[in-house]
Amino acid sequence: MTVDLPKYQALENTLRKSIEGGRWRPGERMPSIRELCNRYGFSKITVQHALQRLEAQGLIQARERSGFFVSLGQSEFEPPRQAAMPASPKPVSVSQVFQDIMTRSAAFDLLPDLQSDEPPPGIIQLNRSIGRALRRQSASFQYYDEPAGDQALRAQLALRAAKRGWKAEADQFCITAGCQQSLFLALMVVCQSGDVVAVEAPGFYGVLQLLEQLELKVIEIPASPTSGMDMRALEESLQVWDIKACVVSPSFATPTGAVMPSEDRRRLLELAERHDLAIIEDDIYGESGWFNTPDSLKAIDDHDRVIYCSSFSKILSRDLRLGWVSGGRWHRSILQLKLTSQLASSRFLQQGVASFIAEGGYASHLRRYRQCLRQQRDHLVGLLGDWPVPLKATAPQGGLALWVELPPEIDTLNLYAKTLKEGIVITPGSLFSVSGKFSNCLRISFAHPWNEARTDALQRLPALMF
Amino acid sequence: MTVDLPKYQALENTLRKSIEGGRWRPGERMPSIRELCNRYGFSKITVQHALQRLEAQGLIQARERSGFFVSLGQSEFEPPRQAAMPASPKPVSVSQVFQDIMTRSAAFDLLPDLQSDEPPPGIIQLNRSIGRALRRQSASFQYYDEPAGDQALRAQLALRAAKRGWKAEADQFCITAGCQQSLFLALMVVCQSGDVVAVEAPGFYGVLQLLEQLELKVIEIPASPTSGMDMRALEESLQVWDIKACVVSPSFATPTGAVMPSEDRRRLLELAERHDLAIIEDDIYGESGWFNTPDSLKAIDDHDRVIYCSSFSKILSRDLRLGWVSGGRWHRSILQLKLTSQLASSRFLQQGVASFIAEGGYASHLRRYRQCLRQQRDHLVGLLGDWPVPLKATAPQGGLALWVELPPEIDTLNLYAKTLKEGIVITPGSLFSVSGKFSNCLRISFAHPWNEARTDALQRLPALMF
Repeated sequence: MTVDLPKYQALENTLRKSIEGGRWRPGERMPSIRELCNRYGFSKITVQHALQRLEAQGLIQARERSGFFVSLGQSEFEPPRQAAMPASPKPVSVSQVFQDIMTRSAAFDLLPDLQSDEPPPGIIQLNRSIGRALRRQSASFQYYDEPAGDQALRAQLALRAAKRGWKAEADQFCITAGCQQSLFLALMVVCQSGDVVAVEAPGFYGVLQLLEQLELKVIEIPASPTSGMDMRALEESLQVWDIKACVVSPSFATPTGAVMPSEDRRRLLELAERHDLAIIEDDIYGESGWFNTPDSLKAIDDHDRVIYCSSFSKILSRDLRLGWVSGGRWHRSILQLKLTSQLASSRFLQQGVASFIAEGGYASHLRRYRQCLRQQRDHLVGLLGDWPVPLKATAPQGGLALWVELPPEIDTLNLYAKTLKEGIVITPGSLFSVSGKFSNCLRISFAHPWNEARTDALQRLPALMF
Repeated sequence: MTVDLPKYQALENTLRKSIEGGRWRPGERMPSIRELCNRYGFSKITVQHALQRLEAQGLIQARERSGFFVSLGQSEFEPPRQAAMPASPKPVSVSQVFQDIMTRSAAFDLLPDLQSDEPPPGIIQLNRSIGRALRRQSASFQYYDEPAGDQALRAQLALRAAKRGWKAEADQFCITAGCQQSLFLALMVVCQSGDVVAVEAPGFYGVLQLLEQLELKVIEIPASPTSGMDMRALEESLQVWDIKACVVSPSFATPTGAVMPSEDRRRLLELAERHDLAIIEDDIYGESGWFNTPDSLKAIDDHDRVIYCSSFSKILSRDLRLGWVSGGRWHRSILQLKLTSQLASSRFLQQGVASFIAEGGYASHLRRYRQCLRQQRDHLVGLLGDWPVPLKATAPQGGLALWVELPPEIDTLNLYAKTLKEGIVITPGSLFSVSGKFSNCLRISFAHPWNEARTDALQRLPALMF
């Protein structure tokens, strides 16, 4: 039975088939509305309606003042493989490259010396807000802030948490000097020297550094580039080893951008309860997703086993040095450790940020920044498509980076040394594990605009690989 | 042989004898220049000359627009006694009162809820400088500062160190989130759980908290209320116990305000070399002295055994949360730990403070603030003289507090509970040791102006003691 479709739907189907058939490549610009009107003989209204429906389905994406582009939601690249099952727990000894990259204050920019981008309106508004808090400081410069941090900021954090399924109270938060410090406090309170900690592989290198610093052993649990830590592998490890804590980044994990499915999240918390495990949730990328913002693990933490860690560094400013931790059953000890190790945080800074959030500046900034990230990711995927090297890559819908797997003969640690001489800083795959795996992988960030210099740097990489 | 003295010298001798004879009490206002002219029949020039000479000798002090006052350099009170020889090292378990006082963000104010003082010109200038740094931030909000901290601030610290006998380089400093964090990093790098650390008794309670947190044992070395840690007692302890580190505050130590004499400083470093000891120098009060600024221990540290710790909290702002550490032979490990545990400090904040120092704002602020402290101390001594309780007290010439010994039957921890009900926060002596000693002592701060409310609070304390 054939039914006469409305015009917009007929056009929608035609365009969908063309996209799926590869007529326009992912990332490529669609014909303009006027061109489509001319080509198919439909009105402007009909064409717009069809395009909007395709956009709602995620097949195409509108970019301000540039028209519609074929979506990269489904990457043109095959995803990288998941690593094999874990070996035994081992002490951590991370390479000098870690510190080298951090010292270059790079990690997320191919050209950290560039720093030419103008601050976006959100940052200008944020800085005004901090300036105002400074001018209102009066006598409080003579007093330490309370150890948990400024009440107004913690109240804003609780409001934001509630939007992600977690009915938090301001008193459940402790302000820190960033997510790295939150992770440090969490690990220091939960673990004793020699304890075993499970992490994702590949996973955040800052955690590996912390494990080495605190003389903890690591067991690396394979993580899928799309769905995160492998729950079956974790369960098998828990049956064999006495694991004290598990550090996990369920939403847009670095380096892959993976998002853990709901059923895996529930299973993780069940395993935690069964094996008396502390779950340290690194949610620093949680709010970066452009299609959706997943609920936090903390939102389904019925047994107070999740220590929630985050900060403003990835989606607002790396120079604020403000993070937070909510420690579940370990919260009092974490608060005590924060007090003992640094007394307090800067009150005027917290007040400035709290006002910025309360006045809606943070929400607007996030909206704009997510669209930037989405466009910069799409652009990066397009540029990688031009690389004369066979590659697999993740297609994250949040976070600041994607994960590229190159042919096995390419050693990205060697590449790091070579590119450095050209002023380009890459993030080699071997940083994200202590196993020696991922030596042919790269994390490539899309946190910065693809101006000419960065585009050029990215395009020069393949020639340096061989 | 009698020599005819010049008139000003004759008057000087007469006045000196009157002061020493108790005609005017310490802290009491001297007759005005006009009164002295009338009384002794000398010219204004002669009287001024005599007064200036007495001031240079430290017997009297000029206060702006108020005339001359009998100096309190030599207190009217007998100094408190030094504690007895140390017992064996023991684990630390500090009372809940520590955290309670810190949470009240008090410790240095009898009435922390008051906070009515207007910010002094130095703070207004500092905040403008930070605001300027914020506005100039451009793209750097997207990058972490280098782990050691901002180069410009470290260069300013090196310049200030040079004024105190220590030819420091900018690269010898690592910026931290305050002196407490500097001490934390130092202890964490130098010591392993179970190690023994020597501290002053009475000494800074924050160090005792750190030792408990890091599961270190403490040996409390008696400290003289005027000359600091007893070197003979330290030497005897070193012969008996395996001591890993010694935390010491050689200049205007809290709670007493003691200054360690040069010969003791040299002896301390000799002992460190002989017994393979790390010296952790807490110099947070080093620049507060109103008559002189002692050289740091670090200035005579020929063997890189001194880990120098300080911050801006006591003499500029407690809300900056900027400190620094210079770790001698342990500096690389400290830098690594700072990187691992918090990545970086806030760059715009450091740049603002660096400009403030470079433009002379810090030096002017210090000059003014030291005079404030001196006057507030003198005023406090005057108020204590009116207490209807026999007491001994130190007479510091720097720092923010003095140390009062009350009759042995008075328990200042009980007093703490009582005064709290009246909204007054005192700092009981037992906080400054794990020995149970000093229960009849009090640290009383002169960091804040003696307005009517604070004066009233201080005057109400004796009635609550019995």
